Amino acid sequence: MGKKKEMLRELAGRIYDLDVEVYERLGSSLGRVFNQEREQCIKELVKLMDSKSKSHILRSQLALISNMARTIGDTDTRDIIMKKYEGILQEVTILPKSFASEDILDEKMAQLNEWNLEERFSQDNHLVICIGRAYGCGGSEIGFVLADSLKINYYDVEIFNEVLKRMELEQDDVEDRAGFPAFQPAQKLTLKQRLKDINRYHGLPKRDAVFFNQCDLICDMAKREDFVVMGRCADAILTINNIPHISIYITAPFEQRVRRVMKINKKMSEKQVREHIRRLDRKHAKYYGYYTGRGWGHAENYDLCINSASYGIEGSVELIRRMIRRSG
Amino acid sequence: MGKKKEMLRELAGRIYDLDVEVYERLGSSLGRVFNQEREQCIKELVKLMDSKSKSHILRSQLALISNMARTIGDTDTRDIIMKKYEGILQEVTILPKSFASEDILDEKMAQLNEWNLEERFSQDNHLVICIGRAYGCGGSEIGFVLADSLKINYYDVEIFNEVLKRMELEQDDVEDRAGFPAFQPAQKLTLKQRLKDINRYHGLPKRDAVFFNQCDLICDMAKREDFVVMGRCADAILTINNIPHISIYITAPFEQRVRRVMKINKKMSEKQVREHIRRLDRKHAKYYGYYTGRGWGHAENYDLCINSASYGIEGSVELIRRMIRRSG
Repeated sequence: MGKKKEMLRELAGRIYDLDVEVYERLGSSLGRVFNQEREQCIKELVKLMDSKSKSHILRSQLALISNMARTIGDTDTRDIIMKKYEGILQEVTILPKSFASEDILDEKMAQLNEWNLEERFSQDNHLVICIGRAYGCGGSEIGFVLADSLKINYYDVEIFNEVLKRMELEQDDVEDRAGFPAFQPAQKLTLKQRLKDINRYHGLPKRDAVFFNQCDLICDMAKREDFVVMGRCADAILTINNIPHISIYITAPFEQRVRRVMKINKKMSEKQVREHIRRLDRKHAKYYGYYTGRGWGHAENYDLCINSASYGIEGSVELIRRMIRRSG
Repeated sequence: MGKKKEMLRELAGRIYDLDVEVYERLGSSLGRVFNQEREQCIKELVKLMDSKSKSHILRSQLALISNMARTIGDTDTRDIIMKKYEGILQEVTILPKSFASEDILDEKMAQLNEWNLEERFSQDNHLVICIGRAYGCGGSEIGFVLADSLKINYYDVEIFNEVLKRMELEQDDVEDRAGFPAFQPAQKLTLKQRLKDINRYHGLPKRDAVFFNQCDLICDMAKREDFVVMGRCADAILTINNIPHISIYITAPFEQRVRRVMKINKKMSEKQVREHIRRLDRKHAKYYGYYTGRGWGHAENYDLCINSASYGIEGSVELIRRMIRRSG
């Protein structure tokens, strides 16, 4: 018998004996995980310990023993048994094929996730929090209050448009001393202005041009400052550009969102609000999908998703602060 | 002019003046939010402050001023201006129609959410963490390590089945001294045994009977102990029964899950693994939907969703511990 197998058999024996001990202490059939005779059970345990694909069974068996052990009334006995259990668990955990050996960590994603980079906060990286949210869940308020409480900048679509407009105006001011008002309706533009627009947008449709300008702006900002950014596919943009950030998606149950929007916008009927939210959800998903190729609001595309109805606006802010360890 | 309107006008004036001040300090056209003349801007600001549905514009304008103000180089000047800004923001926030006034909090959900109930942990409620997870994301490992690190019980489907089986055996032992092995294949059961089964399951299909037994067990456990429970629709069961808990959904990008399952189960081809994961996802969604009427893995049905690929197993455990303030 190989040395490894011998080691596994010894460990299996200790697991079996621990189960017997817990059973004897509790004196109930509920306390027994292994009902067959010792040698047979050890053989099966060794098999489990040597199989990654069945590790969940081993884990459940160990958990069952420890769950039972925790119900032992006498504190001293319980402590001794739990110490034995912890020792066994540690040894099982470091087995090459045991249940904790295959991690799910995506190195690349983790590198971009600021929650993993605490020690680097003080160095080169800025704290960039990207928040996507479903309409009516209070996400914008959460972002705004969060930015304010962290004393960092807040960017949403209005601010982006404003900043981009001004940058363009400034550029115009340099490029064209005569100056002309930006964003005139297309029909009012002269040929010269249209040509200039084509030039400015590198021949792209304006929607795409605006998006690419936003990309540049967001990446540039991430090099210079800490901030909270609402939507704008900022999470995907920063991921593509290998810039660390935290991506959060905020939502709330549909009915909750309907109620909130109705409180805010008294001019719409309930039916109108429902349709409005559904339409915006579709629009959001389409915009995000178009520019990122990812599913909007799908949990696997964010670091974290928060249900704001569970916490409220202040509670959600507090939760995020707690996670980045900047809780007040 | 009413007293309220006068107050709003005064506040609007201070916002306008702050913008001018920031603009003058920075000496750039990028620093100016309001470009029209004072009286006109104040009128529009008052309108914004008096309209819930347009509050996002007011919020963006305030954010833009503060974003700009933060770039002022001279610390003393910046501090004075930021203090003015904070004062204005506080006053805007407490306006009856301002942007922070409509919360999204669902009182009932919040009451059931242990994250909001910290002060009650030491009293009557037990710490119950319900974890739903997509196959292959390491969710079970996260739950197990979390339970172990918190020194509380861990329950998954295997343990539930085992506990339910034993409870039934014990019951049988009391009800029927002759005793017979439980869970025999149907064709082997005598008529007497079948009738007993119908009695035991109250005429329900066995799948439903097992589910309802689980419901009872979970609710009963929640009254007696702290624990982590994997799947079993435990979140929905506890919500229906008004028992406080934390509901977490863990997932990871599909490709990541495929890679992890392939590492664990070397006997399956990549194609088989992909199909296996898709099939289990469908099965999960169907089971959850059937018993809860809710969407499995939809962020609005949980307190929180975690992407385990961003943190890894240990990192996810640490994140959850941080959120319940039991970080090591």
